[in-house]
Amino acid sequence: MKKYPTIIDNIYAEIKDIKDEGKVANYIPELGCISDENFGISITTIEKQNYGVGDFEKKFSIQSISKILSLTLAYQLEGENLWQRVDVEPSGNPFNSLQQLESDKGIPRNPFINAGAIVVCDVLIGHLKNPKEDFLDFCREIANNYDINYNEKVAESEKRTGFRNVALCNFIKSFGNIKNNVDDVLDFYFHICSLELTCKELTEIFMYLTEDNYTTHKGNSIITESQTKRINAIMLTCGFYDESGEFSFRVGLPGKSGVGGGIVAIHPDKYCIAVWSPKLNEKGNSFKGMLFLENFTTKTASSIF
Amino acid sequence: MKKYPTIIDNIYAEIKDIKDEGKVANYIPELGCISDENFGISITTIEKQNYGVGDFEKKFSIQSISKILSLTLAYQLEGENLWQRVDVEPSGNPFNSLQQLESDKGIPRNPFINAGAIVVCDVLIGHLKNPKEDFLDFCREIANNYDINYNEKVAESEKRTGFRNVALCNFIKSFGNIKNNVDDVLDFYFHICSLELTCKELTEIFMYLTEDNYTTHKGNSIITESQTKRINAIMLTCGFYDESGEFSFRVGLPGKSGVGGGIVAIHPDKYCIAVWSPKLNEKGNSFKGMLFLENFTTKTASSIF
Amino acid sequence: MKKYPTIIDNIYAEIKDIKDEGKVANYIPELGCISDENFGISITTIEKQNYGVGDFEKKFSIQSISKILSLTLAYQLEGENLWQRVDVEPSGNPFNSLQQLESDKGIPRNPFINAGAIVVCDVLIGHLKNPKEDFLDFCREIANNYDINYNEKVAESEKRTGFRNVALCNFIKSFGNIKNNVDDVLDFYFHICSLELTCKELTEIFMYLTEDNYTTHKGNSIITESQTKRINAIMLTCGFYDESGEFSFRVGLPGKSGVGGGIVAIHPDKYCIAVWSPKLNEKGNSFKGMLFLENFTTKTASSIF
Amino acid sequence: MKKYPTIIDNIYAEIKDIKDEGKVANYIPELGCISDENFGISITTIEKQNYGVGDFEKKFSIQSISKILSLTLAYQLEGENLWQRVDVEPSGNPFNSLQQLESDKGIPRNPFINAGAIVVCDVLIGHLKNPKEDFLDFCREIANNYDINYNEKVAESEKRTGFRNVALCNFIKSFGNIKNNVDDVLDFYFHICSLELTCKELTEIFMYLTEDNYTTHKGNSIITESQTKRINAIMLTCGFYDESGEFSFRVGLPGKSGVGGGIVAIHPDKYCIAVWSPKLNEKGNSFKGMLFLENFTTKTASSIF
Repeated sequence: MKKYPTIIDNIYAEIKDIKDEGKVANYIPELGCISDENFGISITTIEKQNYGVGDFEKKFSIQSISKILSLTLAYQLEGENLWQRVDVEPSGNPFNSLQQLESDKGIPRNPFINAGAIVVCDVLIGHLKNPKEDFLDFCREIANNYDINYNEKVAESEKRTGFRNVALCNFIKSFGNIKNNVDDVLDFYFHICSLELTCKELTEIFMYLTEDNYTTHKGNSIITESQTKRINAIMLTCGFYDESGEFSFRVGLPGKSGVGGGIVAIHPDKYCIAVWSPKLNEKGNSFKGMLFLENFTTKTASSIF
Repeated sequence: MKKYPTIIDNIYAEIKDIKDEGKVANYIPELGCISDENFGISITTIEKQNYGVGDFEKKFSIQSISKILSLTLAYQLEGENLWQRVDVEPSGNPFNSLQQLESDKGIPRNPFINAGAIVVCDVLIGHLKNPKEDFLDFCREIANNYDINYNEKVAESEKRTGFRNVALCNFIKSFGNIKNNVDDVLDFYFHICSLELTCKELTEIFMYLTEDNYTTHKGNSIITESQTKRINAIMLTCGFYDESGEFSFRVGLPGKSGVGGGIVAIHPDKYCIAVWSPKLNEKGNSFKGMLFLENFTTKTASSIF
Repeated sequence: MKKYPTIIDNIYAEIKDIKDEGKVANYIPELGCISDENFGISITTIEKQNYGVGDFEKKFSIQSISKILSLTLAYQLEGENLWQRVDVEPSGNPFNSLQQLESDKGIPRNPFINAGAIVVCDVLIGHLKNPKEDFLDFCREIANNYDINYNEKVAESEKRTGFRNVALCNFIKSFGNIKNNVDDVLDFYFHICSLELTCKELTEIFMYLTEDNYTTHKGNSIITESQTKRINAIMLTCGFYDESGEFSFRVGLPGKSGVGGGIVAIHPDKYCIAVWSPKLNEKGNSFKGMLFLENFTTKTASSIF
Repeated sequence: MKKYPTIIDNIYAEIKDIKDEGKVANYIPELGCISDENFGISITTIEKQNYGVGDFEKKFSIQSISKILSLTLAYQLEGENLWQRVDVEPSGNPFNSLQQLESDKGIPRNPFINAGAIVVCDVLIGHLKNPKEDFLDFCREIANNYDINYNEKVAESEKRTGFRNVALCNFIKSFGNIKNNVDDVLDFYFHICSLELTCKELTEIFMYLTEDNYTTHKGNSIITESQTKRINAIMLTCGFYDESGEFSFRVGLPGKSGVGGGIVAIHPDKYCIAVWSPKLNEKGNSFKGMLFLENFTTKTASSIF
């Protein structure tokens, strides 16, 4: 841990005031209200030591970062059968594209594009009694943080305007790969996307991906060692839509971004790091977040490669 | 090293006689003559210890595995400017697809699909006096092995039948991203693909990707630490065409396959491993090679994730 | 007229019992119940003479043939502005494809693929007080036939299973090219598709496309001479999905098919002809219908070319 | 004929000086040298009467218009078997696109896109002893005009820069749908494209598409009545690349354009009309040519619909 704070402080100072060419996501109206000045970083090491700087204790909409959590629970409940419903290949296409679904007959390329995450929600509904409550309980337990919650306004905002996601869900259902009612699946999906956490909370909730045999504070194990490695592998190849290769190339860590401007990245056996800055580059990933993490793994020489 | 031989022997014995659903590549006629019984494995650790089993000392056509070598030399000579000519994103498409090139205006998705490797050859021709000789010298020096050579028959065979690659090269030239004569570029490309090495030689030639500051036996450094990590990163996201995600998911190592049936994989700071079995699965990757490596990283718990 | 009955009888006799390689559409469950033995032909000449054979007076679900009627009314109400919402190009893709919509930013290629017909429904809703009633009145007046009606069971059946169309409509709305509520647009669309007419009624309702200045029995003109020609032109280039070129090539008349097994074709200034046979070829067009019409225009030498 | 001269003169005067938003094709360097001021129109009626205005007696490069002539000769020699090598469907894509060829396994969508015309050349080489001479003889006989010739400079210019066409030809060969040597096929193709005719000559050479049983001045028939109709049908659905629907919609005649700025259109049983103006719209069709013909069929009420 020792070296991280100084390095983080230095990069934070360097990047804080650079001209950010990105744009705040506005397709979910409620997200458009966030100040683009926000900038926070948090790291938690495998020894449970934490360091943060800037707005690292402000809640924000983690959006697609939550796809890691829903995937984890579905993998726990469904096991390897899950991969009959969703593949593990990078898509080479934007996050909400319908093109590949057509040639792939309704099997989404991976669980981190919207199509795949919607199928994962459908899988979860098949297992959970009260999907929204049960999923929240799952998140709270692994984070040991009972303060985590959905933002109903954001969920509502996305439901009102999310025609592309409604299209995706119905399209997949036309191929038979959605088993439940479309409205139920999407309501669940929009809620999961609306989860709010701080950078610090993000690094805590994802500690289970840094350790091989993580158990929650209640003593429950979450997923197997092999499953943990596999989720990290999918994050590396698919975590940043059609910029996944670029993130792997420049940063060299498994990670996941959200249109709220958050990015979380994992160094297995070492640490979890989270950055938040709302302005997105043209691929939909946080402009400053990418830049910060590239500098961080370079200066700490801690890419996995 | 100690644990590897037993594990390798065990998996070799298990897999050797299973029914292999793959098929030997026949689109390059000369490759169709290879016996599909061949099966060899070799590992070389960072401490320079080597172990092999089966046909690990037979030469075979490494085909696309050579794309790592041409990329390395081009990266050394051209530096980061290289990425203006070729991207680092997984393609989500088969290895010889022309579709994406059209929407991407002649910039190949990555240096490991044919289109990208052809552009890399064009870059090399711009730097080298005698491209074929100079490239061979480069390979021989990093391997400290002056026995490495092209197979002219295979190069010739591919030239006679490689209409798809001629199409790719002319298509890219129509976008201005090939600077030299098409025939020269393809002659060089087909020769590079025809390189012949044994599994053992493969693990030796790629040791420079396992160490941060590798120098050749002549004392020359090859590429920087950062460049080494980046080549590993591209191998992980793009090394297996549209099965790259699957390899990352099941094996968890940077790697690269060739239609000759070879696969090479790197564990940074630990080892380089090579497998050869000519029958390919439907995505064009060695069926037994994939299976062997999945078992190997599982049993040695040595994925990078 | 004189020559047509004999020619029709002869072709009918020839084709009636041939082995029909087609299949009855089953993706709308209600349509799957129709006997595939049905086979009827009707012709009405510009002099208002009619001749029919086989099941030409049985009602059937005209499905996509109704897209001509909704286009006609939208063209009447919206004029040339209509073409800002939908294009007039053949799509080169299956009837319910979403691929092109993505690159075309929500502007459907033409009004005869599902996407285009859904946009036409949206346009109509913007003009009509009671869309379903008003559209029915329009059809009844031009046919001078107050017996024409929707089949509620078929409309209901399609609504329950039409996920692909729900996807299309939401997808287009995500680009801003659907102005009204998605459920309202689709309810209207499914009703229009469920219209039931006989072959004879079809030839009567489309007489307005054979004459330059048609007026209804109430003395109302429908569309201008230029608009009439343009609808015929779109039928010729786009009336048979990705088999439009084939129909133009083999039959040589403007026409439109429906998955209920009906085909209607127009010879400007001469006649309107309708065929019904429920088994469809793999492109979704009536197998015997295509065959009949090819024979008919060959034997009467009455293609427009 | 009587009414045509005045109508032509009037439209010519109206359009001559309007601001032309098009651009002269410059991808074939030799074509870039043509003055964009050129504007000519010629009509020849089925009674063999001719009228012309402007630059209607200047030779120009007819480019893709020659695809009608090569198709005609191939259809004559190969009969209906021709359609096993090339389809008759509109492509919905730009003229030199490779995308569809990949999913269609090397069968071009129609003989009027480059891919299709290249396959037609390959078919012709299989039938002709001296392809270039024999094809020229064919053209001269049907036009009864021994002054028609290739422009070697234009053919040469296209050969030097036509990488996209080289790509297309090799790509099709990789699917087995080119039987002859690629260089021979392309040399023939580039020569055919380089044919030079005046507007007047164009209307004369295509008279065989206006009459059902045309015979040349030597008394030879060219193609059957049914084949004539079918070529007209393909011109209507496919003659203007991805603007074919628009031409059918606005003009309503079978026609074909070339990047030299020429357009020829046929009214079966009535006339053949040719327009030349080098500036092209963004789809690659003559801007003023399209405008002229739209006005002409409107004012003469002579669309085929």
